[in-house]
Amino acid sequence: MHLRKSLLSLLALSSMSAFAEFKALPEKAPVPADNPMTPAKIELGKMLFFDPRLSMDGTISCNSCHNVMYHGGDGRPVGVGVHGQRGGRGSPTVWNSAFQTVQFWDGRAASLEEQALGPLVNSVEMGMTSHDLVIDRIRQIPGYIQAFKAVFPKEAKPTILNAAKAIAAYERILITPNSPFDQYMRGKKKALNAQQIKGMKLVDEIGCTSCHTGENFSGDGFKMGEGHYQPFPQIPGSKYDKMYDLLSDKGRWEVTKKDDDKNLWRVPTWRNVAITAPYFHNGKVKTLDEAVRVMAKTQLGIDLKDEQVSDIVGFLNALTGEFPKQTMPMLPNTANMTLTPDN
Amino acid sequence: MHLRKSLLSLLALSSMSAFAEFKALPEKAPVPADNPMTPAKIELGKMLFFDPRLSMDGTISCNSCHNVMYHGGDGRPVGVGVHGQRGGRGSPTVWNSAFQTVQFWDGRAASLEEQALGPLVNSVEMGMTSHDLVIDRIRQIPGYIQAFKAVFPKEAKPTILNAAKAIAAYERILITPNSPFDQYMRGKKKALNAQQIKGMKLVDEIGCTSCHTGENFSGDGFKMGEGHYQPFPQIPGSKYDKMYDLLSDKGRWEVTKKDDDKNLWRVPTWRNVAITAPYFHNGKVKTLDEAVRVMAKTQLGIDLKDEQVSDIVGFLNALTGEFPKQTMPMLPNTANMTLTPDN
Repeated sequence: MHLRKSLLSLLALSSMSAFAEFKALPEKAPVPADNPMTPAKIELGKMLFFDPRLSMDGTISCNSCHNVMYHGGDGRPVGVGVHGQRGGRGSPTVWNSAFQTVQFWDGRAASLEEQALGPLVNSVEMGMTSHDLVIDRIRQIPGYIQAFKAVFPKEAKPTILNAAKAIAAYERILITPNSPFDQYMRGKKKALNAQQIKGMKLVDEIGCTSCHTGENFSGDGFKMGEGHYQPFPQIPGSKYDKMYDLLSDKGRWEVTKKDDDKNLWRVPTWRNVAITAPYFHNGKVKTLDEAVRVMAKTQLGIDLKDEQVSDIVGFLNALTGEFPKQTMPMLPNTANMTLTPDN
Repeated sequence: MHLRKSLLSLLALSSMSAFAEFKALPEKAPVPADNPMTPAKIELGKMLFFDPRLSMDGTISCNSCHNVMYHGGDGRPVGVGVHGQRGGRGSPTVWNSAFQTVQFWDGRAASLEEQALGPLVNSVEMGMTSHDLVIDRIRQIPGYIQAFKAVFPKEAKPTILNAAKAIAAYERILITPNSPFDQYMRGKKKALNAQQIKGMKLVDEIGCTSCHTGENFSGDGFKMGEGHYQPFPQIPGSKYDKMYDLLSDKGRWEVTKKDDDKNLWRVPTWRNVAITAPYFHNGKVKTLDEAVRVMAKTQLGIDLKDEQVSDIVGFLNALTGEFPKQTMPMLPNTANMTLTPDN
């Protein structure tokens, strides 16, 4: 107890400077040099993002699990792909994903471009048997042939890597600026209420923001492609390990098979966290209150009081941003025939 | 043979007047007196139409099968609902459905309002166990409570009938005007090419337009709620009965159980038919060419020549309209919790 208190005092001291490191969300996401943004590319990416023909039986698009009209996820514990199959993990929100330095819960993709290629050929997600099959379908759709030609004039035909580039370009505009917190950071002190300010100080004092740092609250000081990983649970042995099945999915270890990576996870964003329940990689925790309790206990060894939970939840609610209006894409058609068989 | 020829001559004669009955698509659909259109109601209906929380496990919205970004259907033989379950029939396009006097392939709903209630509680579609459960979810979403109150001020809370009204109001703006055919009808004679004009005359001469009449090519002279039904096949016994399994689904009989209604179907629209493959109630016919051949044989007893098929397909392609740009709805959220369990 004594040690804990000393540690907390130290953290409280060190947090004074960390507190100053809170950052507003930029209006634009980082863009890789080899995939510059153009309006036509973004529009093409939007069409592909919404096109269920990119799945085996024509039922699942990127948007099915990463629903941009909702909050960028699916509101479910785990994603559902073709033939009603459930995935093993929850669908992370696509909004502000451009600020994550690595993609997927385990960081197995170094970029949005790389990420976009995965679900297409995952048998329990979009279920295509190969990327060749994906691009073969795209090449049968005249409107896509034309759009790819306009966006990528050096390539005679649509390619899978260009499809991924277009999707990533679209995802880079999915930014939710101007949350109450961002307004506060830009000087509008009334944007946060007293409880939210208490919560903001508290997350810093108890140490949440040692991982949830930076403009996206998902780890700062990392280059694109370099993830910020943390063990979860950091302190195993609490009742939550079993209650929420926190240990069976080994996280980053599933990718690297390195012992040090067991139960390591990419630090997820706090942006819009209040509206993206359920929580954690397996979606087992249904409310934000409980997620806050679980985190404090498993990562920091702290049993929060109810009032503290409310304060933190209040602050996290201040991180819900503004979702910009978008036009719906119209998917290019194939006259007189269909491309999506009943399989 | 002789008799057939005489009949065809008669049809050719009578068609001279029918030809004059071709009609352009109106810019506005009929609106029932008890559900007037307002912008707020349309916007609410759009949110509900796109909201997967209206399905049991949060995976299926109206838009999943009636994809307004695509062509209003799903491009599949039959729809796919919760848990990957397949329905028994293809998903009719929602575009221009407001011009159909009855809804569903078998006309079992007299209005769009009535139609909207069906898939919600169909176990292989959205899979909700009751309408009460649907409205219970809606009533837990603060943004909906507010929107319903604004649109339906007489009711204290959201109701299922008002949800259906809002969805129907949204569907009534889903109109695709200004196809080449419509432009032609309004005097722009170059909007159709020579082949398309040949095709237009041909569908009239051989009798297709005795059923596919009116502005929506789906039966004219009927009041809302009164369907125009036809047997399909009209002339059983062709190779197509077995090839495309035309007889096992008894159509309207499944609703009424009247002998006279066996294999009766609502006359489907020709609007956007070129881009809404696959064809017929069971989606067994993959291309428009083949659909035209099947129809001529089973309904009129005619074996079309390849050139005739091409001419008719050319004309049907002239019925692809313009899909108006729409904004995406943003679905109202539920802070700190989710409504869609993993079941």
